[in-house]
Amino acid sequence: MARAWEDKIRKVEPYTPGEQPKDESVIKLNTNENPYGVSPEVKKMAESLEMDILRKYPDPKAEELVKALADYHKVDESQVFVGVGSDDVLGMCFMTFFNSDKPILFPNITYSFYPVWAEMLRIPFKTIDLKPDFTIDINDYKQDNGGIVIANPNAPTAIYLDKAEIRILLEANKDSIVIVDEAYIDFAEDGASVLDLVDEFDNLIVVRTYSKSRSMAGLRIGYAISNKEIIKYLNDVKYSYNSYTMNYPSIKLGSAVIADEDYFRSVLAKIKNTREWFVSQIKEMGYIVLPSSANFVFASPAGISAKEVFEAAKENGIYFRYFNSPGIDNYLRITIGTDAEMERVVEFLKTL
Amino acid sequence: MARAWEDKIRKVEPYTPGEQPKDESVIKLNTNENPYGVSPEVKKMAESLEMDILRKYPDPKAEELVKALADYHKVDESQVFVGVGSDDVLGMCFMTFFNSDKPILFPNITYSFYPVWAEMLRIPFKTIDLKPDFTIDINDYKQDNGGIVIANPNAPTAIYLDKAEIRILLEANKDSIVIVDEAYIDFAEDGASVLDLVDEFDNLIVVRTYSKSRSMAGLRIGYAISNKEIIKYLNDVKYSYNSYTMNYPSIKLGSAVIADEDYFRSVLAKIKNTREWFVSQIKEMGYIVLPSSANFVFASPAGISAKEVFEAAKENGIYFRYFNSPGIDNYLRITIGTDAEMERVVEFLKTL
Repeated sequence: MARAWEDKIRKVEPYTPGEQPKDESVIKLNTNENPYGVSPEVKKMAESLEMDILRKYPDPKAEELVKALADYHKVDESQVFVGVGSDDVLGMCFMTFFNSDKPILFPNITYSFYPVWAEMLRIPFKTIDLKPDFTIDINDYKQDNGGIVIANPNAPTAIYLDKAEIRILLEANKDSIVIVDEAYIDFAEDGASVLDLVDEFDNLIVVRTYSKSRSMAGLRIGYAISNKEIIKYLNDVKYSYNSYTMNYPSIKLGSAVIADEDYFRSVLAKIKNTREWFVSQIKEMGYIVLPSSANFVFASPAGISAKEVFEAAKENGIYFRYFNSPGIDNYLRITIGTDAEMERVVEFLKTL
Repeated sequence: MARAWEDKIRKVEPYTPGEQPKDESVIKLNTNENPYGVSPEVKKMAESLEMDILRKYPDPKAEELVKALADYHKVDESQVFVGVGSDDVLGMCFMTFFNSDKPILFPNITYSFYPVWAEMLRIPFKTIDLKPDFTIDINDYKQDNGGIVIANPNAPTAIYLDKAEIRILLEANKDSIVIVDEAYIDFAEDGASVLDLVDEFDNLIVVRTYSKSRSMAGLRIGYAISNKEIIKYLNDVKYSYNSYTMNYPSIKLGSAVIADEDYFRSVLAKIKNTREWFVSQIKEMGYIVLPSSANFVFASPAGISAKEVFEAAKENGIYFRYFNSPGIDNYLRITIGTDAEMERVVEFLKTL
């Protein structure tokens, strides 16, 4: 039955997040979570959280968290914006900076939220085809636009775009904001990030997340680093929507984790090692595997369709991510789990 | 220096949240926080939070929290929407339901975020003057509109609008969504809420918050209750912006608090008692005090301006809220603190 108020509302096709099975025995390699738990520093801080403080609003500026991130990245506190996951940060960036009549540009194969935000916020957009090898050709981004967003490494391909290429992209687009979404950058080589380019290009925003390398998807923390003018514009919009988005546990636990560089490095090393081993194993089985700089691989099986592998794996309690989209419908996105998990995955794949 | 990208961005006048002084000795009566700490149930749950679970994304549906709220309010789970504070819930409601070219309506004196959201989301709006006694005349809302939002009790007046009046408002506006923001309703009489009208009117959304009566402003939880079609539309928009907004501590601690009805009732009773005592005291000093159904009072001093009282109090470590706006610029919004705090406030006010 149509309601009288139906014509006044905003209707959208909702984004479908990856499945979150409740069965603990599932090998869950479908949402690029970190297989390792949080730093012991976080556990220590958790014990000293004060519940009676909850009666008060949290610090709207989340200064403790902003300072921890600014110190870690050697930038000024005025250059850091924090939000409820990088989805919140990216959504705020779209709302704030993609506000012209010109189309924003992003690859046809990339993080599936970009077109969702553009549609919801009524931002015109144009997708740019990846090259046949799934890489980005930055020459395609030398055209009039309302802004650009690039995931680097890209998702779901896991392919890294060289910093020198991004520099050319930034040079060619000085009258647009360019967002580089570095959700997976910690799994790439050291020095792969374009963070140091924020001093050189006033149109660059770098976005990061706690949900992958920091093992803290459950806390919902993301952040942006840019120049202080950009961050001010972002905060102005944020404070006009919700002044207090970062709750007390997020501020305290999110600050604590930054201090533990050794644990962080050891987790990254383990995941990269497992990734190399897993890639070599499935390549031996004939899989095509795109070069991965992330905590997942994008791979196409041999002699069986990706969809069949996806479904057979699910039946056996192993969750991969499968996108039924043109150009990638014979690929699987497989998160890198622990060694034990990936060994079981390899054994299972061999049975197919 | 103007940047090349300046013309593509969204510029807003940011909302200014109430001050959050770091000095612990301040008597903080400026943001309507609860003076009493959280329920012991929350402390118990805090001890059993598992930090290693943080590596995983939280349940995007926050089912545990939704179920706790549905059971508490005796509605179906499909009738509950949760968000990062009622600001997030209200913002999502504005975005979803106030999407026509007709102006939405709300009082000229009310929660100061309503015009901020409308401006940011480019929703046309029209404010309706309160009557000289600061009450709402619902006859003023019998006009063509794109939606209506009413805070009940209203802020910063603390005045309650009778449920029978809201029923007339709903009857007269069946082709618009009507949001009743019940942030302070727990401090009104039992049975004051319009929650039970959601079965009767398909255009009603009731919004609640954990930040006042539940002593959990620091956790950022708000929710909406309506019919399941409305909640579905809201979730569609929410999942298109950020699928995982409720973090793991919010879901666990927010669920735990609902179980402790005795503690909740005892806190409400204490605050209402203190409010009645405080009102009688300042009335004796000649203050005009609007009838309060909230955890704050809106009061106008005698023989001295509100602004002077506000400033003198601040110098003495007592924070009130003062709005330098036409019609209310000789009033103070004073949150009800503990008995000890309010006794000190009365003593201080007597010195002026």
